[in-house]
Amino acid sequence: MRFTAETSSDGVLERDFTLGEVTGALWSPAAGSDRAPLVLLGHGGGMHKKAPGMVGRARLLVADGGFTVVAIDAPGHGDRPRTAADEREIAAMRRATAAGEPAGPIVARYNAHLAERAVPEWQATLDALQELPEIGAEGPVGYYGVSMGTAIGVPLTAVEPRIAAAVFGLFWHDSLADTARQITIPVEFLLQWDDELIPRQSGLALFDAFASKEKTLHANPGRHAELPRFEADSAVRFFARHLGRIVMPSA
Amino acid sequence: MRFTAETSSDGVLERDFTLGEVTGALWSPAAGSDRAPLVLLGHGGGMHKKAPGMVGRARLLVADGGFTVVAIDAPGHGDRPRTAADEREIAAMRRATAAGEPAGPIVARYNAHLAERAVPEWQATLDALQELPEIGAEGPVGYYGVSMGTAIGVPLTAVEPRIAAAVFGLFWHDSLADTARQITIPVEFLLQWDDELIPRQSGLALFDAFASKEKTLHANPGRHAELPRFEADSAVRFFARHLGRIVMPSA
Repeated sequence: MRFTAETSSDGVLERDFTLGEVTGALWSPAAGSDRAPLVLLGHGGGMHKKAPGMVGRARLLVADGGFTVVAIDAPGHGDRPRTAADEREIAAMRRATAAGEPAGPIVARYNAHLAERAVPEWQATLDALQELPEIGAEGPVGYYGVSMGTAIGVPLTAVEPRIAAAVFGLFWHDSLADTARQITIPVEFLLQWDDELIPRQSGLALFDAFASKEKTLHANPGRHAELPRFEADSAVRFFARHLGRIVMPSA
Repeated sequence: MRFTAETSSDGVLERDFTLGEVTGALWSPAAGSDRAPLVLLGHGGGMHKKAPGMVGRARLLVADGGFTVVAIDAPGHGDRPRTAADEREIAAMRRATAAGEPAGPIVARYNAHLAERAVPEWQATLDALQELPEIGAEGPVGYYGVSMGTAIGVPLTAVEPRIAAAVFGLFWHDSLADTARQITIPVEFLLQWDDELIPRQSGLALFDAFASKEKTLHANPGRHAELPRFEADSAVRFFARHLGRIVMPSA
């Protein structure tokens, strides 16, 4: 792991890094993270590690929860090159959307392919981070990613025992429900009640599939991209409850 | 409104009152409530204004949210006498349960009858409270009640413009959906995913019915009576967001 840039503002230290082909960013309290629990932040399709929504969630987790937060670019996203397969699938998604056909089956297939590439990258990133003295290998780890972040996060969580709590949501059940049935850690699951891409029953079926004894569905009106801002606050409290940090008031 | 008893512990002042036939309790910060927003707390069937879950929610709303909280006994509940009609319906519910038949239709019918009696009582209580100098008529009002508290709260909220935000849940859609469609204030709605009394689709249909632009469904695994404790914390934050108080950390 090689750190390539470092900035600090409003009490949050942001460091860019590379690990082999993987490009990532790490956010931590500027005053020192003192083995804070680590939250892995997965971005959505077409986004990247520092998309505005990602930076907003990362800074909130650091400022309000005291967590350390890491995001990496998914394969073919952000600072990483696309393969011929990436280009083919992206073109197929665009064609379906332009033709008014459901993109869901293509998204599910492509994201499953990306997850196969991304899961070992997340595990290598976690290995490298846990070797840093300020993080260490003892602390609990959370995962937080919706949409494509869930398509990657669910298979990651199913094979990664270091992840102790996860926020998922905004995905179809078809390609993920079998894997979700292997997951028993606490889950907070986000669903948009008027999602124009994901049928309501498909989202509910994915929530239903998790074997977790503690799981909580948060459904809100609005389209796929209209997740309300207060759900990011709720995610901070969810991780505080399960990873063991006290939430400070942000007011 | 006549105050009949007063105790104070852990920074919370608790006062019993009567208003005509209605028996109630009022919780407020012992240090002074200073025109804090008011939350109306409705109890469930067979419960009363000071059932342990009611007192727990009331104290949390006062301690963490700085609210003033009022609960009244529903007709035929707590310190209030049962009518012949109450006795008949309670006997019918018991017979259905003992016979392993669904009690839902009887509960819905009986609770609709109770709501007709309870709505004007809540309005009279609110009138009387707003005449108290420490409460006043200016502040926003919230309503918080699940199960029978929702069967009464939904028709109350539909006719009571002073209520600005509400937490509902744990009820069938059949008898309430038409009234819910008249409600446009922010709603947080609780649903138990494995509710043995209320079919999942019926609970989802009631959430769906609210016309509110901001409404949020919280669904958790477990049976009707197994609402997780953290939803009470979430309700405090919901009211803080909509009634305008800052949430203090309870840790």
